[in-house]
Amino acid sequence: MMQKRNQPGLSDRSNEPPKFAGIHTFLNLHHSQRPEDLKESDFAVVGVPFDTGVTYRVGARFAPSAIRSISGSIRPFNPVLQVAPTEVLNGLDYGDAPIVPGNTERSMERIRETIGKIVKYEALPVCLGGDHSISLPILRALAPKYGPLALVHFDSHPDTWPEVYGEKYNHATPFMRAYEEGLIAPEKSIQLGIRGTFRGPGDLEANERIGFTVITAEQLLDMSSSEVGRRVKETVGEHPVYLSFDIDFLDPAYAPGTGTPEIGGPTSAQALAYIRRLSLEQLKGVDVVEVLPSLDPSEITALAAATVIFEILSVVAAGSK
Amino acid sequence: MMQKRNQPGLSDRSNEPPKFAGIHTFLNLHHSQRPEDLKESDFAVVGVPFDTGVTYRVGARFAPSAIRSISGSIRPFNPVLQVAPTEVLNGLDYGDAPIVPGNTERSMERIRETIGKIVKYEALPVCLGGDHSISLPILRALAPKYGPLALVHFDSHPDTWPEVYGEKYNHATPFMRAYEEGLIAPEKSIQLGIRGTFRGPGDLEANERIGFTVITAEQLLDMSSSEVGRRVKETVGEHPVYLSFDIDFLDPAYAPGTGTPEIGGPTSAQALAYIRRLSLEQLKGVDVVEVLPSLDPSEITALAAATVIFEILSVVAAGSK
Amino acid sequence: MMQKRNQPGLSDRSNEPPKFAGIHTFLNLHHSQRPEDLKESDFAVVGVPFDTGVTYRVGARFAPSAIRSISGSIRPFNPVLQVAPTEVLNGLDYGDAPIVPGNTERSMERIRETIGKIVKYEALPVCLGGDHSISLPILRALAPKYGPLALVHFDSHPDTWPEVYGEKYNHATPFMRAYEEGLIAPEKSIQLGIRGTFRGPGDLEANERIGFTVITAEQLLDMSSSEVGRRVKETVGEHPVYLSFDIDFLDPAYAPGTGTPEIGGPTSAQALAYIRRLSLEQLKGVDVVEVLPSLDPSEITALAAATVIFEILSVVAAGSK
Amino acid sequence: MMQKRNQPGLSDRSNEPPKFAGIHTFLNLHHSQRPEDLKESDFAVVGVPFDTGVTYRVGARFAPSAIRSISGSIRPFNPVLQVAPTEVLNGLDYGDAPIVPGNTERSMERIRETIGKIVKYEALPVCLGGDHSISLPILRALAPKYGPLALVHFDSHPDTWPEVYGEKYNHATPFMRAYEEGLIAPEKSIQLGIRGTFRGPGDLEANERIGFTVITAEQLLDMSSSEVGRRVKETVGEHPVYLSFDIDFLDPAYAPGTGTPEIGGPTSAQALAYIRRLSLEQLKGVDVVEVLPSLDPSEITALAAATVIFEILSVVAAGSK
Amino acid sequence: MMQKRNQPGLSDRSNEPPKFAGIHTFLNLHHSQRPEDLKESDFAVVGVPFDTGVTYRVGARFAPSAIRSISGSIRPFNPVLQVAPTEVLNGLDYGDAPIVPGNTERSMERIRETIGKIVKYEALPVCLGGDHSISLPILRALAPKYGPLALVHFDSHPDTWPEVYGEKYNHATPFMRAYEEGLIAPEKSIQLGIRGTFRGPGDLEANERIGFTVITAEQLLDMSSSEVGRRVKETVGEHPVYLSFDIDFLDPAYAPGTGTPEIGGPTSAQALAYIRRLSLEQLKGVDVVEVLPSLDPSEITALAAATVIFEILSVVAAGSK
Amino acid sequence: MMQKRNQPGLSDRSNEPPKFAGIHTFLNLHHSQRPEDLKESDFAVVGVPFDTGVTYRVGARFAPSAIRSISGSIRPFNPVLQVAPTEVLNGLDYGDAPIVPGNTERSMERIRETIGKIVKYEALPVCLGGDHSISLPILRALAPKYGPLALVHFDSHPDTWPEVYGEKYNHATPFMRAYEEGLIAPEKSIQLGIRGTFRGPGDLEANERIGFTVITAEQLLDMSSSEVGRRVKETVGEHPVYLSFDIDFLDPAYAPGTGTPEIGGPTSAQALAYIRRLSLEQLKGVDVVEVLPSLDPSEITALAAATVIFEILSVVAAGSK
Repeated sequence: MMQKRNQPGLSDRSNEPPKFAGIHTFLNLHHSQRPEDLKESDFAVVGVPFDTGVTYRVGARFAPSAIRSISGSIRPFNPVLQVAPTEVLNGLDYGDAPIVPGNTERSMERIRETIGKIVKYEALPVCLGGDHSISLPILRALAPKYGPLALVHFDSHPDTWPEVYGEKYNHATPFMRAYEEGLIAPEKSIQLGIRGTFRGPGDLEANERIGFTVITAEQLLDMSSSEVGRRVKETVGEHPVYLSFDIDFLDPAYAPGTGTPEIGGPTSAQALAYIRRLSLEQLKGVDVVEVLPSLDPSEITALAAATVIFEILSVVAAGSK
Repeated sequence: MMQKRNQPGLSDRSNEPPKFAGIHTFLNLHHSQRPEDLKESDFAVVGVPFDTGVTYRVGARFAPSAIRSISGSIRPFNPVLQVAPTEVLNGLDYGDAPIVPGNTERSMERIRETIGKIVKYEALPVCLGGDHSISLPILRALAPKYGPLALVHFDSHPDTWPEVYGEKYNHATPFMRAYEEGLIAPEKSIQLGIRGTFRGPGDLEANERIGFTVITAEQLLDMSSSEVGRRVKETVGEHPVYLSFDIDFLDPAYAPGTGTPEIGGPTSAQALAYIRRLSLEQLKGVDVVEVLPSLDPSEITALAAATVIFEILSVVAAGSK
Repeated sequence: MMQKRNQPGLSDRSNEPPKFAGIHTFLNLHHSQRPEDLKESDFAVVGVPFDTGVTYRVGARFAPSAIRSISGSIRPFNPVLQVAPTEVLNGLDYGDAPIVPGNTERSMERIRETIGKIVKYEALPVCLGGDHSISLPILRALAPKYGPLALVHFDSHPDTWPEVYGEKYNHATPFMRAYEEGLIAPEKSIQLGIRGTFRGPGDLEANERIGFTVITAEQLLDMSSSEVGRRVKETVGEHPVYLSFDIDFLDPAYAPGTGTPEIGGPTSAQALAYIRRLSLEQLKGVDVVEVLPSLDPSEITALAAATVIFEILSVVAAGSK
Repeated sequence: MMQKRNQPGLSDRSNEPPKFAGIHTFLNLHHSQRPEDLKESDFAVVGVPFDTGVTYRVGARFAPSAIRSISGSIRPFNPVLQVAPTEVLNGLDYGDAPIVPGNTERSMERIRETIGKIVKYEALPVCLGGDHSISLPILRALAPKYGPLALVHFDSHPDTWPEVYGEKYNHATPFMRAYEEGLIAPEKSIQLGIRGTFRGPGDLEANERIGFTVITAEQLLDMSSSEVGRRVKETVGEHPVYLSFDIDFLDPAYAPGTGTPEIGGPTSAQALAYIRRLSLEQLKGVDVVEVLPSLDPSEITALAAATVIFEILSVVAAGSK
Repeated sequence: MMQKRNQPGLSDRSNEPPKFAGIHTFLNLHHSQRPEDLKESDFAVVGVPFDTGVTYRVGARFAPSAIRSISGSIRPFNPVLQVAPTEVLNGLDYGDAPIVPGNTERSMERIRETIGKIVKYEALPVCLGGDHSISLPILRALAPKYGPLALVHFDSHPDTWPEVYGEKYNHATPFMRAYEEGLIAPEKSIQLGIRGTFRGPGDLEANERIGFTVITAEQLLDMSSSEVGRRVKETVGEHPVYLSFDIDFLDPAYAPGTGTPEIGGPTSAQALAYIRRLSLEQLKGVDVVEVLPSLDPSEITALAAATVIFEILSVVAAGSK
Repeated sequence: MMQKRNQPGLSDRSNEPPKFAGIHTFLNLHHSQRPEDLKESDFAVVGVPFDTGVTYRVGARFAPSAIRSISGSIRPFNPVLQVAPTEVLNGLDYGDAPIVPGNTERSMERIRETIGKIVKYEALPVCLGGDHSISLPILRALAPKYGPLALVHFDSHPDTWPEVYGEKYNHATPFMRAYEEGLIAPEKSIQLGIRGTFRGPGDLEANERIGFTVITAEQLLDMSSSEVGRRVKETVGEHPVYLSFDIDFLDPAYAPGTGTPEIGGPTSAQALAYIRRLSLEQLKGVDVVEVLPSLDPSEITALAAATVIFEILSVVAAGSK
């Protein structure tokens, strides 16, 4: 599947247009929704500007645009992993899923359909949220093809509440729904960075009952990144993986632009180190969610999101060489 | 119904706590949801922090809080109308309607119920949006008691689209729905300040077919405030009135913190002058909507909303003396 | 040249993707740089993210992106002029000119080349600055085809200084250079809105010597929009026109996001009214410049820029029907 | 007293350092506190970074710095009045009065002393507030020399409360104290732009009893600038004048960065027009107060303050030629 | 004293109103100032919106409101300490102390009186500053009942200057005054996180003379949280404790919204870890001070303050079970 | 060269003017450009407000002003190093170099000239950028006197690209140019903190070929500050040193106000610790660059820059005692 991409060589890069110029796509990838292009692609970036599932500060609908824009400042080569992911992998920017603001059910159906088109061609969907509720329809598109997935979930919140305000579908519940719908394999799944306050002791008990491995932020900050990598590997095994990265996994100092921040989290350097220790040969889907641009005039949250995706793509590319 | 309120006299006012201090209610009104307090009230302020109906920039759920906070800077006496509205009228701050973020239908039902409790005691509901979709459930609570209402609608948008993205209930459609449900009397209704761009010529034709009187911003800016008052009076007559004030009626210079601004609008001085020319003896309900605090670090939009409400209450109070 | 565009009908518009979604082009126009598409186009929008010519607050390089983004909130139909410009006119978004940050000379040459490609096919270049220095290379691309142009220049500054800090090419000098290079016809040219402070009495004397008609802000605010239209018409006659709109023409209340604001300017309603009174049958080029997004968290400056362009296109479309 | 200043000629101005560079003084005036320099000066700019007198949003202590910084964007020549004030008048920037944050009494004494040093040499003190409480100690420095002054007071608030929270000295009371202390001549004094809400009918009655002429914002917006100039002239006569300009005189759209904004005010163009109609031959002191920089990321409020001072100096300079 | 609170069970929590809705009290506690409610309370939250004691960036008067607002995002259960503090402890939100902006002496007296009312009923006062000068009147209310208190002081500054600008009462001096007035037991007191620049070597010598234990930030960052807990325990012993937490204890990355930040401080995760190691059986009073909301559009500073208080209450609750 | 400065004693410091007051110079140093003052100076602070060399987010031209302003909050004594640098060393604030916005070549020549005047008197130039391109002309002024310098370079970027967009002189190339021009001694030079993405593997290879020692951020975060100090010492030896500190060396959480942030960097506490371990007896020049104030409303980036300079001066002062 992986093939060297036919691209202008690096030596010409200093003559490229400036990074703030032009029509913004993620990493300046080619924008296309054509099946023939998807067929040639190893991955497809999809914006999912849906934030109706948010229970507190809202505005993640503008995140795909903000992440695309700041991604222009990312250069092609990853010096730690010694790989240029968009040269090793063929990728495109699919644009945004045609969500319906205010209507969760219809939006979820459209997200599922859109991701389905990408999954059909075995391209890796790389999804720019939107709020965390979007993980559910993405998993609904993936599971029919790959079976229940191993969830690798970076977040400050477990997102496994039974419901909120009497609502079953929103950004606090996607992985409970995914579990109930059989989209994820709980005993192969792991959550990292959980912290903050809960509704009660039942919040984490639910996850244990389900079978998730949970590493709280307090535990995480006492572990080395190698240990973290090992724990993820032990849990996930050779299972197909879905990687969900809520930007509020990071401490709010590193990601101030998010709706429901929780203090006491890891640094961005730690996040990158964890990602580099992941084995992502079986990666089938990715989302990075909960960026809320209007709360961060410095745009460092969107930059963190874009860099996290670049790092994930680098790990994939390094593994595929 | 109107009776002099039993309140500390003005002469003590300079010894009051500072306007930034304390638990914020609108105009520092007493907070209560008790029927016996509602029974004694001429008006009740209700926050409706619902913004799931928004199609573009979102966050009006924080507007009730922002408007309450800045309302602390408003003093009791209106020198133009020579009245202290909260001394002539009994009012309370009911708190917020228990909306369900992300679920329009359930939220609308809860808003209707909440307003219904106020209407039951013939208190005037003064609603702090939230987005403009909240006008519909408020009207649903009012019409059973007062019959179809005369709509006096300040806005840059007609809000009478048939649907958006296939959705019938959101901030672009409330008055089409209200018309269809028989909640408003179209020939007694008037829209002021309409401007910006439309989907097509059909947008305003719909309003004409319905029977609304429409004064566009271009027409409005060529009229005196007395003419505006006369046109409203001619249209509304002695009918019970619902006054809906979308803060984007104001030019964005005067209300930058709003989701869907349209340039080319009136000033705040003009808005106040129009309000003072209204005859509001038959006022049955009020909303001020579409304030989006996170887009306005100076808080002048929330201040405009609070002042508009104060001015409306002043007109009511002056008329009741 | 003008032909009805083959486009989805208006009735489908409510089912379109939300205005914040997708890859942003101006007014969601098709993005293309292909000659065959230019050949079919009545106008081409071009971003010119160049701000090295700025002498004070800098950052207009991000304006094309900001204007494209907010332009998603503009709907297709202009109700005042009763026209849907992008349905009457064929247009595309060409993307950005490949400028070189920090190098004025090379950037100007690239801008000239880029605009030249559009002018070659007789499409109208609609340029999103960038700072005001970009007008010079645009005029250099236009004049060889159309001869010296009549300049219709909305601005608070005359932009006809001989030089600044010993530099001849920057945002304070474009029209002095254009005059010297014979690109504009001074006696057919008019400047509107000039105000603020000057270096000395010589600043306006230069313009008089050159032959420009100058209407200061003080004069403008005493004139009706019809008078303004008449004065422009009298000056310009039947000459080919270049319309340059510096966003600081507007009072800073209406355009806070700009580098060199001057208080005491017109409102956005006045600006729209002036534009509607223009006769633009001979329009050969347009720029809207000096938007500085980082200074305006409410984005009303970018919205004003986008709306001004929409209004100009509407006038052109209305005249071509 | 007035003499042509020995300054570099205007023709060299384009070779000056950029307006954002260097150590910021007001209008790049020479910074000095030496008596021999004061003796040669027609006016002295003094920062008064005192905001302990503020009852609501606070931070005007940073206004002198912000106004000095943005004043770098003002060029030397006023084209409406055809004068370059800093060439006709000798001026210096004295720096800031050594106030004591948190201690009103000691600060007022230091302000009085500082202004006294300037008044001693008959230089015009031009004071950059700070909050409006600073007018009192400035008047205490002026009255011993010039007798009770005619107050020309642009503001949305009367600032003549008897006390606030039991406190007699703060930004709501300076002119009541000044009246009681015999520092102003009430029948020669005029207040323009008063609006917003009052504590009760007594607020303006106090001013009438005192003898002030009051033009409310509602009245002002119905008058031409010539009428305004005439009314001021009639009130003030040939009396020595103190001009106090609270930036919240402007509508918050034009001055969002202020602590206690009131909607419904005049534009900056109107403010400039009023100032140009003033006869300021007898001007003995000036303050511009209540700029709160942290609330205005666009800095248009500080720009308005700087421009208002420049316009006042221009009127003085034009009158002295 | 501690008794299980009669509250709705946790299982109903998902049907609560949204966290952004309603009249904001701290953690949605009941608002009351009635003696009978205080008598039943284990703790009372009191806002102290006083910032006249600030020597640099000002605006902490808005902190109680901001902390209350963001505290709505905190859920009832602390998973690290396995306790739901507001269910173990009875608490209320008293509202704000009736301070007098601009008058330190009168404000301090009112703060002392207000806290005195709470102390009278042996409820724990949990104070939301305001600036750090408020610690003095709080200690004045506590010491008469409990004797000199052991101070546990998290801060980047020692706050033991003899005076500033000749003033004895402000945010740089509270603990020198408290020492002089015999309100604290210096040999039982400890300061953690001190860093930044001093006026001279005398600054810390004063603290040593007084008898305070001081752990600088440089020392702190080299210690484990257990060591920190041990050092505090060794110093404090069984003495009644006053805990004062200046938010600038945190590095400015974690608390950008504060008046006098000092770089080089601990993370929020470290702060939480230190708090969890405290023995707070003898806690008699708490303040969290120096949050300055207008400098932090992301609100992460107010969130840190709210979470710190929640963690302190959790430690108290866990100790009382 | 070093002599005790004739200054007011520390004991008077509490009577100084407030830190927000007055005309801002760096650390309130005397402002002078007179040769006789330079002759007496150990160091001279020079603003270099040049940002034409920026390839992405622009506005560092306002950094000297922002750093000077916030430096007022720094007190004279460094408690870690037990030294008051401005009392041990004679220093002045020279003001800004007279750069030409938009013209790199002329600006570089003027910067070189300005620094040359300082170097002439053997004062240490302490330069406030501006973007990183300014290091080149500073080195051009230093090398003729001191020979090729040992570069100690804190940065997330190597800044040794051959060119960008075909341009040789900008903020991505200064040290390649300095190497080519023989201004630095590569084998004595060290870069610390390099991270983020590269154009390709060649980016670091170039540095190795040149002879630079490079410690990437990943390596740095695994080293103790003593090791870092040792590595720098080993590299630099007794060579004359140029210290260049790009504020984006810090993680964006600690320095959000910068143009090209890279996540995954060190904390400010780490940066201070590294600086304290430097041996700076041979320090010949310093710059701190790439602060972009408009992106950081909390001003913590400018504070970090000011504190870094204070720490460097402290190390120099401690070494000279």
